[in-house]
Order: sequence, then C-alpha cells, then structure tokens
Amino acid sequence: MFKRVAIVGVGFMGGSFALALREAVKGVEILGVDINPKALEKALDLKVIDRAYERLDDLENVGLVVLASPVRTFYNIAKSLKQVLDDQTIVTDMGSVKGKLVYELENILGKKFVGGHPIAGTEKSGVENSRKDLFKGKRFILTPTPNTDQEAKRKVSELWSLLGSYVEEMDPYVHDYVFGCVSHLPHAVAFALIDALINLKKDVDLFKYPGAGFRDFTRIAASDPIMWRDIFLENKENVLTAIDVYISSLQKLVDLIREGREEELTSYLKEAREHRLRLEE
Amino acid sequence: MFKRVAIVGVGFMGGSFALALREAVKGVEILGVDINPKALEKALDLKVIDRAYERLDDLENVGLVVLASPVRTFYNIAKSLKQVLDDQTIVTDMGSVKGKLVYELENILGKKFVGGHPIAGTEKSGVENSRKDLFKGKRFILTPTPNTDQEAKRKVSELWSLLGSYVEEMDPYVHDYVFGCVSHLPHAVAFALIDALINLKKDVDLFKYPGAGFRDFTRIAASDPIMWRDIFLENKENVLTAIDVYISSLQKLVDLIREGREEELTSYLKEAREHRLRLEE
Repeated sequence: MFKRVAIVGVGFMGGSFALALREAVKGVEILGVDINPKALEKALDLKVIDRAYERLDDLENVGLVVLASPVRTFYNIAKSLKQVLDDQTIVTDMGSVKGKLVYELENILGKKFVGGHPIAGTEKSGVENSRKDLFKGKRFILTPTPNTDQEAKRKVSELWSLLGSYVEEMDPYVHDYVFGCVSHLPHAVAFALIDALINLKKDVDLFKYPGAGFRDFTRIAASDPIMWRDIFLENKENVLTAIDVYISSLQKLVDLIREGREEELTSYLKEAREHRLRLEE
Repeated sequence: MFKRVAIVGVGFMGGSFALALREAVKGVEILGVDINPKALEKALDLKVIDRAYERLDDLENVGLVVLASPVRTFYNIAKSLKQVLDDQTIVTDMGSVKGKLVYELENILGKKFVGGHPIAGTEKSGVENSRKDLFKGKRFILTPTPNTDQEAKRKVSELWSLLGSYVEEMDPYVHDYVFGCVSHLPHAVAFALIDALINLKKDVDLFKYPGAGFRDFTRIAASDPIMWRDIFLENKENVLTAIDVYISSLQKLVDLIREGREEELTSYLKEAREHRLRLEE
C-alpha cells in the first residue's frame, strides 16, 4: 500500500480522508498541501497531517496524490502536479463532479489519474471537523475511463475498501447526471429555500420558528459556499436540467393546490411519500 | 384540570397528545373519537385512550375536546359537536392552519373555542407511532381572537404548559403567514423534489443513491398525504405566495449558474448559509 500520500486541500473532506488513512494504513506518511497556512497549522496541531506544504512544487517521492479542494481548482493543480510528479505517481480526487472534468484531468495527468467520489460528507467544513469514520459503510464511486491504468484503478479501489467504503464503478458522465439529480439538485433546492425565507421575511423573524423537520430539511444549506459554487458551475448542464424538471414538478403542485384538485393532489403527495419511504428500507 | 378529555382523530398527533396528557394529569379519562375503527382498536390496545367512539353524538360530560384530525374535517366536526356539547365544554385543536378557520370554528362553536398549534411532529403517522414526549420543550402557538373566552384560553394554555410546551400567542392570520413560510413551503418543496426525481429517473434508479444529507433533506416528504393535502388547500393563499417567492429564488440561482456569475453566486450561497447557521445557535 502507499507509503507517502499527499492531500491537496486540507479541509473537512481532505482531513477526514487523512484520519481514515492513518488508521487504515500503518506507518503511512501524510503530506498536506493547502494555500491557506492556517488550515495547515490546524492540521499539523491536530496531527491530521505529518508535513505541511503551501506549494505543490515541493512534493517529492509521493505514491499517491488525492485532490480534495473545490472542483474548479483541479485544472490548475493538475497542471502544476504534472511538472513535479514522476510517471509512477497515482493521482485521484474526491470531487463531487466527474464527467468531462475526469477526461480533462486525464489529458493533463495521463492514465494514472483515477477519478473518484466518496458519497459521504456533512454540511460541516474545516479540518477541525474532520471525522476518521466518515467513509465507513458509505459508497465510493470510481469513474474510470477506457484509458485508465488498470493497476492504478485497482490500487485506488483497494485503498477505499480499506477505509471501509463500498466501491462501485460508474461512467463519469452517468455519475454527473445521477449526482446532479440526487445531490446537486437538493442542495440548490435548500439554498434557494433559505433565500426565499429571507425574501418572505416581513415584520416577523421567520427564522425564529424552525418547526418540525425544518432544521433537518435545511441543514445542507449550511454547506460550504465555495465548494458548492464550484459544483454548480462545473456540473452546470445537469444541474440546470434537474432544476428545470424540479420547477415543473413544483408548478404542477401549485396548479393542483390553486385549482383545488383534491384527488390528484392526494395522488401526487402519496406517490412522493411512497418513493421516499423506499429509501428507509 | 380537566377530568374527561375527548380527542377527535386518533392518529400520531392525537395519540401523542393522549400519552402526554395521561402522564401530566393523573386520573384523567381520555375518550378517543375516530371514523376508523382500526385506529380506535389500536389506541385501546396500546392504552392510549380509555374509551373509543365512532360517533361524536355519543360524547357526554366532556370538559375539553381536542381536534386532531386533518384540518379540513374541522368544519363538519364542529357542527356535529355543537349539537352534543353543553356550553361549558372547551374546544381546542392541533391543526397546522389557523387564520379564517379559527374564526369560522368560533362562529360555529362559540367563544369557548380556542385555536392552537403545537410546533412538533415528525413525518410519522398512525397512533402506533405516538410519543408521549413529543411536545416537551417545543413551542405551542395559541391563536385567540378578540372574542375568545379568557378563562378557556387560560385553561388551554395551562394544559400545554403542563405537557412541557412553551406557550406563545399569535394572531391567527399571522400564524398562517409564518407557518406557510417555515413549514408548509418546505413540505411543498420536499414533495416536489421527490416528484422531480421520479421524472428525472431514466435508466438509472436514482433512489439507489441517497447521498449525504438526502435522507434528512427529504424525510418530510414521507409525511401523511391527507394531512398535507388539507393544509395546502386550507392555507392556499399563503402557500401559493410562498411557493411563488421560492420559484423566484430558484430562478435567481439558475441565472447565476447559467451565466457563471461567480461572485454573485458565492454571495447567494454564503448568505443562505449564514442564515441557516443562525438556527443552530
């Protein structure tokens, strides 16, 4: 297994990966790279990483590099990495967007780049909130291309299995459609809900009355804005399609309520409920 | 305190009220009224209620009647109650809609009707899921009108304090605006999200991939369809206004993503995040 691993972006996700890695792979040396010196300092203090780097240029003899920064930083990071890494180094990422990004990173870094996406996370950010058990029992989606080096893919897959994740493969473009629907859309919906409440606030402080379910429902709107800006922009096409379909669903609901179409309204709500209940099975 | 209390609608909310009442008021006799004989049977088996009634006509010597059925059943129930109750009986409700409904019930039942709304609940339904601690530490909104009998109001308020709720007064119409925004809108948003995912499902079973936060985010879409149909229809005006503002918020987000307006997009997400974080304080 890898002896020396560099994590680029030492936040909540990168930090959680580091903690999980340290527990799973005895003796591994973990290098943290971040443009934010305070994040590096905290990560060193908390023993999340062993060594801290503000520049990619200083990395040496690294077996694996894991990109854990906001997805739109990946292009420039890949270009810099290409200058410093030798041909043996495997590069992978933890980004929520794959699709053409995977092909572009492969173009820059070569076939030892293996795209990946751990289906885990919370609305928390910052290395100080990192959790070593974040990936246990969770899915990890590997998104190889027809060019991906098989040995590199096998190693990345093994690593995530070691961290306790269930590894699954998916086409990079299928990934972006699926997660555009089940993750990016709900985040857009949640951010917009808070924005609407800000606009609906008249004389009453609406945020004083977070009733049943409201806290749970809007928790994801507390997610990191930069990370989500990057996801929305990088998976723009799927996100906009999904929001479009969503607005139609909402419009249908509006019509049923406005016109008092009781039976159809009941069916609409029942069908939604039945689909949601299946998730608990 | 009340010696004999009738609960009309023996489901999750009515059942939880019964359990809480039994614990708080020693020796109280609890009568359950429901058109569904199975719900009454379950409630008797679980000792949630002491006596079961399928018809309101058979109620006698009741100190308090609590309406706990879907809100649009209240009109007919009130008319029937008027025929059987004496002038001393206080009537209150647990409905999520107040506004003109409160005034109409007052017209039917007289000034001993006191509107109320416990800000508690889950997506669960059915008397078998009832929880005796459901109202502890939660808000209870009393919605008196200028005509409400002061003594009746005081008694209902005291009862809910006994059950562990924080009692607060609100104008019936203000209530419907506030909860149209913070509760009914989020439920509409959640039901529509599931409907959208049903429509977005192509070859992939999207419901196989409930990523980070998705379960929490959509839990309220598993709420009782009849209860929510009634709420949406009964609070139609506020719900439609809120959804309208919400669609504008979503449209603004769509524009920022489509046009790649990075800074404004970041501000939008940041502002939403900051408002959401305040709820945790």
